Amino acid sequence: MSDIERLRGKMDEITLDMLKLLKMRMDVSREIGDVKKTMGMSFSDENREDELRDKMSFASDDMGLDNHTSSRFLNFLLNESIKEQAGNGQSHLSIFRRAKSLEAKGKTIIHMEVGETDFAPPAKACDALGQACSKGFFKYGLAGGMPIFRDSVARYVSEKFNTKVSAENILASPGARFSVFSAISTLLNPGDEMIVIEPAWPAYKECALYAGIKVRSIHTTMENNWEPSYSQIQDVINPNTKMIVLNYPNNPTGKILPQKLQDDIMRIAIDHSLYVLSDEIYSDYAYKDWKSIIAYNYEKSIITQSFSKSHAMTGFRIGYSISSADITRRLKKIASLCLTNVSEPIQYAAIQALDADISGNVHTIRHRLDILSKKASDIGLDFIMPDGAMYLYARVNQEGFDGVRLAESLLDRGLAIAPGVGFGDYPDFIRISACQKENVLMQGMIILGSELREIS
Amino acid sequence: MSDIERLRGKMDEITLDMLKLLKMRMDVSREIGDVKKTMGMSFSDENREDELRDKMSFASDDMGLDNHTSSRFLNFLLNESIKEQAGNGQSHLSIFRRAKSLEAKGKTIIHMEVGETDFAPPAKACDALGQACSKGFFKYGLAGGMPIFRDSVARYVSEKFNTKVSAENILASPGARFSVFSAISTLLNPGDEMIVIEPAWPAYKECALYAGIKVRSIHTTMENNWEPSYSQIQDVINPNTKMIVLNYPNNPTGKILPQKLQDDIMRIAIDHSLYVLSDEIYSDYAYKDWKSIIAYNYEKSIITQSFSKSHAMTGFRIGYSISSADITRRLKKIASLCLTNVSEPIQYAAIQALDADISGNVHTIRHRLDILSKKASDIGLDFIMPDGAMYLYARVNQEGFDGVRLAESLLDRGLAIAPGVGFGDYPDFIRISACQKENVLMQGMIILGSELREIS
Repeated sequence: MSDIERLRGKMDEITLDMLKLLKMRMDVSREIGDVKKTMGMSFSDENREDELRDKMSFASDDMGLDNHTSSRFLNFLLNESIKEQAGNGQSHLSIFRRAKSLEAKGKTIIHMEVGETDFAPPAKACDALGQACSKGFFKYGLAGGMPIFRDSVARYVSEKFNTKVSAENILASPGARFSVFSAISTLLNPGDEMIVIEPAWPAYKECALYAGIKVRSIHTTMENNWEPSYSQIQDVINPNTKMIVLNYPNNPTGKILPQKLQDDIMRIAIDHSLYVLSDEIYSDYAYKDWKSIIAYNYEKSIITQSFSKSHAMTGFRIGYSISSADITRRLKKIASLCLTNVSEPIQYAAIQALDADISGNVHTIRHRLDILSKKASDIGLDFIMPDGAMYLYARVNQEGFDGVRLAESLLDRGLAIAPGVGFGDYPDFIRISACQKENVLMQGMIILGSELREIS
Repeated sequence: MSDIERLRGKMDEITLDMLKLLKMRMDVSREIGDVKKTMGMSFSDENREDELRDKMSFASDDMGLDNHTSSRFLNFLLNESIKEQAGNGQSHLSIFRRAKSLEAKGKTIIHMEVGETDFAPPAKACDALGQACSKGFFKYGLAGGMPIFRDSVARYVSEKFNTKVSAENILASPGARFSVFSAISTLLNPGDEMIVIEPAWPAYKECALYAGIKVRSIHTTMENNWEPSYSQIQDVINPNTKMIVLNYPNNPTGKILPQKLQDDIMRIAIDHSLYVLSDEIYSDYAYKDWKSIIAYNYEKSIITQSFSKSHAMTGFRIGYSISSADITRRLKKIASLCLTNVSEPIQYAAIQALDADISGNVHTIRHRLDILSKKASDIGLDFIMPDGAMYLYARVNQEGFDGVRLAESLLDRGLAIAPGVGFGDYPDFIRISACQKENVLMQGMIILGSELREIS
């Protein structure tokens, strides 16, 4: 026992020394903050952070400390205030929230900020809701989803993608957002890194921030057709990189990657044993050749799917993920912790929706994007015609243009659009959603055009 | 600029020194592990952990480091594998899961393990589901809940508890479990401590473990009428204590605290500025005087409520929390991150359910508990007659009795009950749920009685 006592004494000493250094570090940090304030500098500094990470990584190698641990440790030191930072900034959602509260006060708003179509949900889904009680779908259930839900979805996915997926690969979720949250917070650990190709739906980054994951953003440009280069991805990968997020057809650009490039990215991911989180909720809205990540048959891929966009069931809150049985089991734990299970009447409605013909929706959105883009050209917006999804991501070519300010002044005029910065470092971009009837969209574009003329 | 560079150099040095200590600490930890292995000792050691926490807390005070930061830091050092630990152990839910999969294989199971009644949901709620689409309740909505949901619930709560609660105090949730998860993971930080009075629903502890919160369990006994003493609570409070969880009527014991004791506990909580997380989902099933925590009008209280038990809407997954506008706003952030919003058809069904008369359900459960307890006495179980809820928490007075083993062998005989250890350190207890029809309950009790005779 005395051996243990001696070692424990040593442990206490070391821990105490660490605490002293922590205190010193916080004092220095405060000093730096004060100097920055005096000089009018901003507080966060990603380059500086990366530099420190590199130094510590070298040092860890030297002393035989595994990089994962030291990175987690550094992350802890850097991210004290991480929770407070989460969920700030202007995005399509903050505009949506403000639009909703303006509506509650009686104002009429044209919603071109969110990806929510004006279509009705499939009649089968609505009818199913009405039958849920009499069919007994109102009980506690398994966290992974009702067996009949998982079976039905597995069959649907297998047929659609000509693959073989079974119930153990399917996990019901109250929307793809929860699947994204689960995958990031369950499969990654604080200090791990995740690659996001921007422009991107902000939820990936928000979930990562919440879970203490470091995001490496890859900035793509309209000039390069919204395509990341092979080397851009290769360059950010380091031993801490554990996941890459893909989202094609992309929100907000509508981009679908050329197949060769997608194959290359998957090869990098597989070579580095990265998790591939592929958000494929716009897959039904693909207007050119598109290949699901399912096709790569990669055991570390997680595909998120939803009935929101494809079946106009946004407010039902139902989606699912597709992954290996092992990953599915791991994701199920957090579903069980947070939710018990996904609402049974809603799962039942979703099962019935699988049979619905949604080709009309797809055709309509494509047509709307066509007319929307004609009008967008007319009012001088710059964009690439989307390959899929339901948005136009367009640049406003005006000196000193500020998308957030535009979105705010448009709200006053009854039009909600999403500022580009919600999706990455794109201050001169806006996202326009094609989810309203033609005449409403045209009305919105007239308001937008007139506002742009005014501020030019 | 040179000031900053000098400070940054100092920062790097300190960080590097910390890293060296981290490496030393891990080496010593490995040595301790080796010694323990040789001696056949177990790896975790909670007393030792507490001792270290105390030491570091004193040291932090000495050096003027705030306790919160040092505690988070120590937590980081101690909890490298915290996620892996979460969600293990036998509980009513693991039995429920196994019962469900046995059923899927064709076995008939009497469910006396879960708190799910055999009642139908209110007809109004079922009808509302069928009308949700035509009424337009199928869209994205605000993370806090539909305004009409929040308003209706606020009115309902205000009338019921003769208090004044408004929409900004109400947050819709997909079940009270999510409210509990949100409150614990949002309001507390790693290293904070939370008090749970056991026996208790395991979700409180699981959510705390997930969020890196230290749980201080208060062990109450049947001999002391399942009442915690004033000093038991007072004794575990320290500067890191940030929350106390209350759950009366209690799951699993059915206990309702004497009002004087509840007042005393609230006074301690208020004196120490603790959050009070009061899970009141069994409030409709109170068979003696019961006082909601709302009545204390305490700004740091969070009350969780659900339609699951009161309205037999378990599988709908709908509940809500009641808290100050400020806390509600904070909880809304995580709802927005994880869920976007709670299913709109389900919210609409819940609104309609508020009008339903549920007194019949309450009367039935009370009657069932009466007959269940008579039978339980007959077969030699020891228990205190519950003041509320829907369970009997009973001791089996047999030498070397193991509740988990009993629950497992009963499953083979077609009866599911919950082992007592799912609710705390009560290996000789079992929880029997009164949620089936009388004849089914009696059938279950016969199986239980015969199994107990066999193993005695």
